[in-house]
Amino acid sequence: MSEDTVLLTVEDTVATVTLNHPATRNALSLELMRALISTFRELGGRPDVHAIVLAAAGHVFSSGHDLKEVSAADHAGQQEIFDTCSELMLLIQEIPQPVIARVQGVATAAGCQLVATCDLAVASREARFGTPGVRIGLFCSTPMVALSRAVDRKTAMRMLLTGDMLSAEQALARGLVSDVADAAELESAAAALAAQVAQASSATVAIGKRAFYEQIHLPTAEAYARMSTVMADNAVMPDAREGIDAFLTKREPQWQHRQ
Amino acid sequence: MSEDTVLLTVEDTVATVTLNHPATRNALSLELMRALISTFRELGGRPDVHAIVLAAAGHVFSSGHDLKEVSAADHAGQQEIFDTCSELMLLIQEIPQPVIARVQGVATAAGCQLVATCDLAVASREARFGTPGVRIGLFCSTPMVALSRAVDRKTAMRMLLTGDMLSAEQALARGLVSDVADAAELESAAAALAAQVAQASSATVAIGKRAFYEQIHLPTAEAYARMSTVMADNAVMPDAREGIDAFLTKREPQWQHRQ
Amino acid sequence: MSEDTVLLTVEDTVATVTLNHPATRNALSLELMRALISTFRELGGRPDVHAIVLAAAGHVFSSGHDLKEVSAADHAGQQEIFDTCSELMLLIQEIPQPVIARVQGVATAAGCQLVATCDLAVASREARFGTPGVRIGLFCSTPMVALSRAVDRKTAMRMLLTGDMLSAEQALARGLVSDVADAAELESAAAALAAQVAQASSATVAIGKRAFYEQIHLPTAEAYARMSTVMADNAVMPDAREGIDAFLTKREPQWQHRQ
Repeated sequence: MSEDTVLLTVEDTVATVTLNHPATRNALSLELMRALISTFRELGGRPDVHAIVLAAAGHVFSSGHDLKEVSAADHAGQQEIFDTCSELMLLIQEIPQPVIARVQGVATAAGCQLVATCDLAVASREARFGTPGVRIGLFCSTPMVALSRAVDRKTAMRMLLTGDMLSAEQALARGLVSDVADAAELESAAAALAAQVAQASSATVAIGKRAFYEQIHLPTAEAYARMSTVMADNAVMPDAREGIDAFLTKREPQWQHRQ
Repeated sequence: MSEDTVLLTVEDTVATVTLNHPATRNALSLELMRALISTFRELGGRPDVHAIVLAAAGHVFSSGHDLKEVSAADHAGQQEIFDTCSELMLLIQEIPQPVIARVQGVATAAGCQLVATCDLAVASREARFGTPGVRIGLFCSTPMVALSRAVDRKTAMRMLLTGDMLSAEQALARGLVSDVADAAELESAAAALAAQVAQASSATVAIGKRAFYEQIHLPTAEAYARMSTVMADNAVMPDAREGIDAFLTKREPQWQHRQ
Repeated sequence: MSEDTVLLTVEDTVATVTLNHPATRNALSLELMRALISTFRELGGRPDVHAIVLAAAGHVFSSGHDLKEVSAADHAGQQEIFDTCSELMLLIQEIPQPVIARVQGVATAAGCQLVATCDLAVASREARFGTPGVRIGLFCSTPMVALSRAVDRKTAMRMLLTGDMLSAEQALARGLVSDVADAAELESAAAALAAQVAQASSATVAIGKRAFYEQIHLPTAEAYARMSTVMADNAVMPDAREGIDAFLTKREPQWQHRQ
């Protein structure tokens, strides 16, 4: 059944993971979240994949958790739902490849959290983003973790306390997404961004992505102590040697990539 | 005398706390800060209050500390002033109800700090914001705590080092306020935002507000560990059960609210 | 040779430090970084200097590390390069005077890091900013420390993963620079900002700058505990006594400044 709720295709070095349950507006059921975890875990171990697009079938990116499932669960069941969701979000930032959300329609609650969590996000100009859990008595406290690290505090608080939606342009201005494209060009814009990321050395990108999340919450001096070593280690790697030499001799680099 | 420096009205479930010392441009004297602390502490214990508007009488929101008082104080007296100010700011974020600043005229120094501290803030289009302590030899180091967590570093530093003011539009773009309204509509805009917040379950909002400040400074993985439990606990509460059921059966929820 | 790679002039109370190696696009060689460290360390100890402009000779602010030097170094040599770079960046934030970057042309990699690190930054309208290390196999992991603390996460990630440049207007909107000026007015705009900063009490500014970096990474309650004491200590200093009195008696203050 996972094969149905999540689709995976790989073309050249770019994987596309597609939420494929439009009937529930791609609700993040336990089954769908587990399928995503399984898919991202598999992709994380594949050196032939250099970048990942997280897309969605249908008119809506994702409406968040499956409320029928949440409603039917006992306390232990709900803990399992939110633990699984948190595991998914952490995994997206842990795997070596950049993950680019490609968002049409609405991304709400845990769907908005997915967008905030991805390394990059391309939104269709008509897309909208919200954390409306407060309106149904269930505050978006786990989406808040990703949201409040992506945007400024007042913007996060306003979304969380009112459930009001951000437009794509507002999401761009606030840092929730990195790119906006016309609806007709959403797919090509996401593909172009993925291709741009994928043409770099995947070994270098993997170092950089891991380093980003390692240092982001540290005091500055401690962050420099670690990143200084990360850079020195990076600089002796074959792909850095090659890239610098190619740059200095004005030729195209030939990457070894992640093995 | 507290009844004079701070006014409190409660209508339906929205409280309005009004700085009421226009003669000193609502300077945050020890007396006024203690009256605010007393008022916010009382409101925090009132389950019938779901949202709080922090307003100001006169042409100016607040000009910050009472410089005559600061000037007359000895070192222990000054420590008392700034400790009391910090206690007030922390209290605003600790009470269960969202606090919405409603700002006309100028909000400077500790007045700007109040705006940065509130969960939400609606500014009149002509309002201006600044931290000009540097110009009188007294750097806005406590306002900086709230300011530098609300806006980006360069914006905070520029305000702190120059004393230059932000316009309402700049404050909105930078995240210092969440809303801007025409002067004639400031009161109604703040009331509408408060009413929107107040119509949610106050039990849910209380969980969400506390959770926001609990997780905001944590590393992501630690934040998820805590928020995952917060959400599971929230999901078994009566108002979440009710809200989800009402959503699924397309009816209006009937909240129990905070008791 | 340091006299050549870095120029220092002091006029009134404003120092101008100029990267002076246009032949390498002001590449941050070990020699140039050591000259900067030496210059900033000297300036930090000079109470007659109240503000510092960090400028660059030629068409480009700085292109980042000297890739020929990086390429020729062994692992220990590279560690030395990045440790020296981190020492320079930390020093800029440690010295008592505000440092204002004045940026024309491009600021890339460690050059962009310099801009992100300075307390304030004035950019020429045609200036551009990027962290393109990923394109040559050497991820900008140390520039990332400063960049990801200056701008939102998606903006930082997009710059780091693609190498794409920000325009001056984008850099302003995202918080990477604090001011933008027409190319013809870049020098006067930076001078005016420096003069404005320099006319405050340098004793007060030194307290404020140190306090900013001391509190920025702390949980709010802990930050208030420290800043409350910083403010009380500041308030009994002669320049605060003088500044408050001058304000209350509507006269110009006479500062003692940092001694």
